[in-house]
Amino acid sequence: MSRRERKKRETRARLLAAAGQLFAERGVDAVPIKEITDTADVGFGSFYNYFESKEALYDALVDELYEEFGTALDRLTRDIEDPAEVLATSVRLTLRRARRDPQWGRLLLLEAQKISGATRGLGPRLLRDIRAGISTGRFTAPDPMMSFVVVGYGALGGIATQIQAATDSTMLAAIGISAEALAERNAAALLHALGLDFAEAQRVANSPLPEMTGAFEAFE
Amino acid sequence: MSRRERKKRETRARLLAAAGQLFAERGVDAVPIKEITDTADVGFGSFYNYFESKEALYDALVDELYEEFGTALDRLTRDIEDPAEVLATSVRLTLRRARRDPQWGRLLLLEAQKISGATRGLGPRLLRDIRAGISTGRFTAPDPMMSFVVVGYGALGGIATQIQAATDSTMLAAIGISAEALAERNAAALLHALGLDFAEAQRVANSPLPEMTGAFEAFE
Repeated sequence: MSRRERKKRETRARLLAAAGQLFAERGVDAVPIKEITDTADVGFGSFYNYFESKEALYDALVDELYEEFGTALDRLTRDIEDPAEVLATSVRLTLRRARRDPQWGRLLLLEAQKISGATRGLGPRLLRDIRAGISTGRFTAPDPMMSFVVVGYGALGGIATQIQAATDSTMLAAIGISAEALAERNAAALLHALGLDFAEAQRVANSPLPEMTGAFEAFE
Repeated sequence: MSRRERKKRETRARLLAAAGQLFAERGVDAVPIKEITDTADVGFGSFYNYFESKEALYDALVDELYEEFGTALDRLTRDIEDPAEVLATSVRLTLRRARRDPQWGRLLLLEAQKISGATRGLGPRLLRDIRAGISTGRFTAPDPMMSFVVVGYGALGGIATQIQAATDSTMLAAIGISAEALAERNAAALLHALGLDFAEAQRVANSPLPEMTGAFEAFE
């Protein structure tokens, strides 16, 4: 890679990082391009050398943040045979990722509001896993698309609850939600939603996670 | 009521309506107070005669929009004995309300992202209904708080899907989601999530709605 190319890549990465931070804080619409370039320390005019529009930047950001994670999840769950365990593992690791990196979680909530997440990133993988569980009879919910909506949003609810717990734990405590083992409780509720008996859902949601390397190494 | 008082009320209502429209379009943070007063045709300075801050206005808006609807739902479901039917009726009518009035639905999605909806508006009512179903044994999900998160967000997923269907039906069609009977399919999936056998969930979710008057008269 030439020096010029390397510089271009670095600038693009800086723009994506700045946008990720600002979008997570205030939403895509509230952030002018000028603020992204200022935060990234890039001249306003050169923005368009990298992205056609703010929306194009947003799309690139989502692709990078969630495609990469989804691919890593696919690799990690490749050898798990039980569709319920695949789904629970994915949900648990997604919630843990969002807890370690609330900005990542906030952007996922933002993305879900657009439902565009159904066609890219983690959405299509969730739908695939639900279909697999229905076809083997492990899940009794017969309407894959509606299960996708309910389970997908149900997991987002877990992420939103975690974010809330990190910023204002007293409110959650007042209504009786604790952040402890939230990922596992969420996964158990989602498996039950798909038709597993609750005791079995809990067993699967608390079974040992696969050995984690690479992108997951830092996960506790 | 004096003429002066009536005028004050009207101005307050205009500010709420303008804010509701702008917040639904772009989120609370993206909308400056000046834009709310301009849209409402009210002097910028007099905003503070009505609300302490933009957040105070937002809170008043949420109270008005969802408390009122929640109270109407309470009245309508008062005589229904089966907790599953109470929950399904509330979900179906909430989704229908959001379909008739997408601005209302968008604000509900916005509100949910803050989880503050757990302590006011429709949230506490949903939690109450889930607890009722668990205590009578109608629902087998034993973790009311996690069910609240999953079912609450699952219903929001239904609303988000409806909004998406209204603005871009081709995308949903491409992934196999149709807007038809979405409220009933969503309610059935949520009852199944709470532990009802799917056939029974479907029966309850498609049973006749109570006779609707007042706030619900315009519901088809």
